[in-house]
Amino acid sequence: MTSPRKPAHGAAPDGELAESGGAYHAPSVAHTDAQTAALSKRLNRIEGQIRGIGRMIDDDRYCVDILTQVSAVQSALDALARKLLEHHLHGCVSHAVASGNGARAIDEALTVIRKFGR
Amino acid sequence: MTSPRKPAHGAAPDGELAESGGAYHAPSVAHTDAQTAALSKRLNRIEGQIRGIGRMIDDDRYCVDILTQVSAVQSALDALARKLLEHHLHGCVSHAVASGNGARAIDEALTVIRKFGR
Amino acid sequence: MTSPRKPAHGAAPDGELAESGGAYHAPSVAHTDAQTAALSKRLNRIEGQIRGIGRMIDDDRYCVDILTQVSAVQSALDALARKLLEHHLHGCVSHAVASGNGARAIDEALTVIRKFGR
Amino acid sequence: MTSPRKPAHGAAPDGELAESGGAYHAPSVAHTDAQTAALSKRLNRIEGQIRGIGRMIDDDRYCVDILTQVSAVQSALDALARKLLEHHLHGCVSHAVASGNGARAIDEALTVIRKFGR
Repeated sequence: MTSPRKPAHGAAPDGELAESGGAYHAPSVAHTDAQTAALSKRLNRIEGQIRGIGRMIDDDRYCVDILTQVSAVQSALDALARKLLEHHLHGCVSHAVASGNGARAIDEALTVIRKFGR
Repeated sequence: MTSPRKPAHGAAPDGELAESGGAYHAPSVAHTDAQTAALSKRLNRIEGQIRGIGRMIDDDRYCVDILTQVSAVQSALDALARKLLEHHLHGCVSHAVASGNGARAIDEALTVIRKFGR
Repeated sequence: MTSPRKPAHGAAPDGELAESGGAYHAPSVAHTDAQTAALSKRLNRIEGQIRGIGRMIDDDRYCVDILTQVSAVQSALDALARKLLEHHLHGCVSHAVASGNGARAIDEALTVIRKFGR
Repeated sequence: MTSPRKPAHGAAPDGELAESGGAYHAPSVAHTDAQTAALSKRLNRIEGQIRGIGRMIDDDRYCVDILTQVSAVQSALDALARKLLEHHLHGCVSHAVASGNGARAIDEALTVIRKFGR
């Protein structure tokens, strides 16, 4: 049985546009439990890295060493973002395209991709 | 009185190269207590944002909304890195240059700047 | 009449995978003449900027002024890349998804998006 | 003999602030002829790449192939910018610091570094 906040893959009625606060949302495709667990694990590791940087700042460690750790967290967040985007394009956006509502879903994806661009 | 891990500004003997694990370190210039407090505050806010993303993943929230939050954390880390680099160039690197050891300090700075470049 | 190298929009047989040198290609969707003209105009402007930087280097102009121009070219190339990606997702990738070959087209798009990411 | 627009290394009077259009400029340190030749060679190669992209657009080549070339030009420009920044920090900024005018030179460098940051 699916929880209310995790509709099974494909449960979102194709072609129906989910609206949230007025903004467009592509029909959402849930992560599998394994995917969610993998994402949580990444996030927990990042949270640990952030706490480590906090300790480096408290101890006034050498600037370059702190910067190197900040850069490592950025890389970890980049990798997390790629995983989320991969799921989004293969899941939500593909569903939207297949149900004839691709244009808005693609525009939304382009907007978020731009946030991670240079 | 300065704590052992927070030498007062300028306490590092000019011209002396701090070595850490064999790698070059410019003479370190401590952050003031106010600077450390400001950096810690930024870090605490980032840690809160990371925990928020963790909850969004647990709740399998819409991918684009999670990606937007990840991008916000990246921006906050970029701003933190700029603050650290600013201190490093104005403090540690300037001291190294003034004491005739600028070349290695600048090479080290260029290496870390590259990690945040595109 | 369409030229051999510019198939009309939709001319690519849906579902057929174009292969080029063994690598996967999504069915290509041609740019309209107006789109091609706009892209060429952008490119010509960028070429002019590059020649301007060449003159600045020959004249040994101030480093920061040259760097500022290099950064302007990077922004112009980012904007060009966004236009190309927009066309690619709305055209080629959407066609691939609609014809049931979306997975490979999306993987290919993710790979190229990553090249422009941080 | 040095040309008027290429003062020999160190010819800029230490401590004198060059002003250009009202904005601060660190005392400029000329590139050697070998450095200028190397930078010009990089630029010429980039100009050739840009013309290649122009032909790909005229021929309406596959989007992903064009994007890959745009990304290659971005990398080449990044490498050029790193060379320019390297010269700027080792030359102009070091001179400014050594002559007691480091703070403004470093602020200017931080501003331009930010343009290449993420």
